[in-house]
Amino acid sequence: MTTELEGLAERLREFARVREWEQFHTPKNLAMALAGEVGELVAEFQWLTAEESRHPDAEALARMRTELGDVTLYLVRLADVLGVDLVEAARDKLDHNDRRYDADRYRGSARKAPPTA
Amino acid sequence: MTTELEGLAERLREFARVREWEQFHTPKNLAMALAGEVGELVAEFQWLTAEESRHPDAEALARMRTELGDVTLYLVRLADVLGVDLVEAARDKLDHNDRRYDADRYRGSARKAPPTA
Amino acid sequence: MTTELEGLAERLREFARVREWEQFHTPKNLAMALAGEVGELVAEFQWLTAEESRHPDAEALARMRTELGDVTLYLVRLADVLGVDLVEAARDKLDHNDRRYDADRYRGSARKAPPTA
Amino acid sequence: MTTELEGLAERLREFARVREWEQFHTPKNLAMALAGEVGELVAEFQWLTAEESRHPDAEALARMRTELGDVTLYLVRLADVLGVDLVEAARDKLDHNDRRYDADRYRGSARKAPPTA
Repeated sequence: MTTELEGLAERLREFARVREWEQFHTPKNLAMALAGEVGELVAEFQWLTAEESRHPDAEALARMRTELGDVTLYLVRLADVLGVDLVEAARDKLDHNDRRYDADRYRGSARKAPPTA
Repeated sequence: MTTELEGLAERLREFARVREWEQFHTPKNLAMALAGEVGELVAEFQWLTAEESRHPDAEALARMRTELGDVTLYLVRLADVLGVDLVEAARDKLDHNDRRYDADRYRGSARKAPPTA
Repeated sequence: MTTELEGLAERLREFARVREWEQFHTPKNLAMALAGEVGELVAEFQWLTAEESRHPDAEALARMRTELGDVTLYLVRLADVLGVDLVEAARDKLDHNDRRYDADRYRGSARKAPPTA
Repeated sequence: MTTELEGLAERLREFARVREWEQFHTPKNLAMALAGEVGELVAEFQWLTAEESRHPDAEALARMRTELGDVTLYLVRLADVLGVDLVEAARDKLDHNDRRYDADRYRGSARKAPPTA
């Protein structure tokens, strides 16, 4: 994990420890909490056009940023209790996608394959 | 953003550029893709007991790690197209939570308030 | 519940009973399974434009229909184990929305309020 | 669709029409709204134990019922704009699951296969 993500993970560990919330922070519960926060993030975009979503006003962007913060916190906490390094896991998946989605074959097409997935 | 998250964001930018997929990577679409990946992550935990989720077998853990990688990629890409620094957003939210959830008042209780949220 | 939704709920009860899966069908687990299926449904729409989503090709529509079926099954099963009548719950919420979103005030605007929510 | 679900779909059509919200109710947007509501539903269960989720107190159950109502409204509306009959789609999927998950082979096991999925 990066120094800064590791720093977040440590703060979250301490946050849970002093409140005696480790008992609630099972991977199962944290995955649900992550899903709940992603639901709130998606809700920020649901009625925006594609173009509007590229240029949110300051108020909407502030709410999106808050939700992105929440999602990051639960993601880092979940990875931490599972002992997974998020950056390594993401790099491995991106290496895989680089091989899977040949640039020439998939250029400009969302039909043949989901971009980056 | 941390050097390592910034590195991921740059790789994702290049990944989208060479495939001409920037047109698909609106914040709206990326938020949906993130929700889809979080759905796959949640599905890994849905039939596990709390205790089983703390000690997944090697095969389940490998699948969870892959899904965590996918979630991280879309989260980093979404934050990047919105111009949001994920680590700063997470720190700001954690500062807020530190003030909101007084350790003495919320100790050991998931009833009074959702842990960390 | 309507006769037809009640019929689905009964089939799902029997489906779980003969497989001895009631033990896994806690409301918590079923809510997670529902979230997982909704993630798959969202993924069907993530790279489509607004217009494309209104006119999916036959193959995409068939996949969407399958996912809608999955979502319905888990929703009916979850409501059944909680003892909630889905149609009554939906009607009550729609009555509430009718009062909350005055037609003249909210006409044509997704800014002031989320449509139907 | 059942008479009662059809009745809901008709009310939702009228609800959108008088507010001129059909423009926002693309299948893509409605799928996002559904995901947002399911996120709120999941959040009701995230810190509950399996056992607690089976016996929510009256206040929690009322919130769950409200969220189930919201999910049902968006699910019915999404199916309606896509022209999909939810009950038929669910029955077809359940027929498929009946064949796929042999009762003797899958009895009592969440390991071999996800129950009902």
